[in-house]
Amino acid sequence: MQNILFGVSYLGTNYAGWQKQDNALSIQEVIENAFEQICNKKVEIFASGRTDAGVHAYEQCFNAQVNFQPVSKLPQALNSKLPQDIRILWAKPVGNDFHARFSAHKKTYIYRLSTQEIESPFDSFLTTYVPHNLNFKAMQQACEHFLGEHNFKSFCSAHTTAKDFIRTIYSLNINKTDNVYEFEICGNGFLYNMVRIIVGTLVEVGRGKIKPEQIADIFAKQDRKFAGKTMPAKALILKKVDY
Amino acid sequence: MQNILFGVSYLGTNYAGWQKQDNALSIQEVIENAFEQICNKKVEIFASGRTDAGVHAYEQCFNAQVNFQPVSKLPQALNSKLPQDIRILWAKPVGNDFHARFSAHKKTYIYRLSTQEIESPFDSFLTTYVPHNLNFKAMQQACEHFLGEHNFKSFCSAHTTAKDFIRTIYSLNINKTDNVYEFEICGNGFLYNMVRIIVGTLVEVGRGKIKPEQIADIFAKQDRKFAGKTMPAKALILKKVDY
Repeated sequence: MQNILFGVSYLGTNYAGWQKQDNALSIQEVIENAFEQICNKKVEIFASGRTDAGVHAYEQCFNAQVNFQPVSKLPQALNSKLPQDIRILWAKPVGNDFHARFSAHKKTYIYRLSTQEIESPFDSFLTTYVPHNLNFKAMQQACEHFLGEHNFKSFCSAHTTAKDFIRTIYSLNINKTDNVYEFEICGNGFLYNMVRIIVGTLVEVGRGKIKPEQIADIFAKQDRKFAGKTMPAKALILKKVDY
Repeated sequence: MQNILFGVSYLGTNYAGWQKQDNALSIQEVIENAFEQICNKKVEIFASGRTDAGVHAYEQCFNAQVNFQPVSKLPQALNSKLPQDIRILWAKPVGNDFHARFSAHKKTYIYRLSTQEIESPFDSFLTTYVPHNLNFKAMQQACEHFLGEHNFKSFCSAHTTAKDFIRTIYSLNINKTDNVYEFEICGNGFLYNMVRIIVGTLVEVGRGKIKPEQIADIFAKQDRKFAGKTMPAKALILKKVDY
């Protein structure tokens, strides 16, 4: 048995999120089924974190104790048992104390939204349509208020079970191409719905309903109801996990 | 009644092609149903050309005789009755003798293929995977042999009903990014499966099975069996129609 770290890309559209659950198909379950087929025994996998229903990943990471040689053939073997919307990208041996969740240093997420009146069929499954003109400069100013270490309780779903709300954001940038905005946020960890609530708050800034300098007040409240809406899952993509 | 020209974008994945048919859902039928709902009468639409089952369009064009004011609100009205994978982009009045098919001067198609060992879930519905290394330079050389006016009978499905196989290709270029090849071809018209067979032939050139200078011989045969395979529909996109 070897502790192996894997990179995996998936479209979350057809799944009830990463985590295994009754009555709904999860990405974890589908991957564990693939392991069972190639290893002839049950294998439990441990992700860097759950992604919610509908959320995608360019490169999510998970580790597992696996008995399979050579390790370099594991992606191909697993992919042959997986649907096309889940692809194992790579596999590499790691130390026995390595855990995809607890060993992670940084995670980067992307959120895509469009203010185009007519949403392209080619973009729609990865982009949220917002029917408003947005003030790009005000949103960029607001981004700066999220940088560094903060208590993110105001930017976390009230349904969380978390007790520690302190997280550090290393970068938060917005790229704009035509009428498509791509938010990229990197931090040491993210609370339940945190990226989607931060983007929802930035959209309120873009609409002029919240001023950039009010972000500090929202942090101070430590109350979910003062932040913006939770944006839809379908436009959230886990870009990468750094170890 | 006014003759109106429309631009429409669609993902062909869920449809049996453009043309209306029994027992299968076509893009034409879905759009005609939307017209019937907003105009309270049957409306027949005429496309620049059929696209096959699974083929996509960034901008297909069609015209129709429509009684609806103002014309500028037609896209919004139709889109409210259409599924998200079909979007009307614009509408403009044209002369009574204008026909989306017969008035077209040029069409441009894109075909995407990847030689990456692991196909990204984000690309797979728009990209064909080819499990071979391809000689990019040889494919580029072969492209030049397609330019200008030729009899394309060798590059047309044997199931065609066409009698005139003379077409003119204005440009044929390949863009390569990492291991994804994007073929862009512009011509005055295309026969049944013609783009997919040209790309299939270029892939054979890339694999070294056909030499670039043999393209002229294949044209001369006027026989489908000497050209390469018909590539899958899912990676073919009608980019635009010029009038």
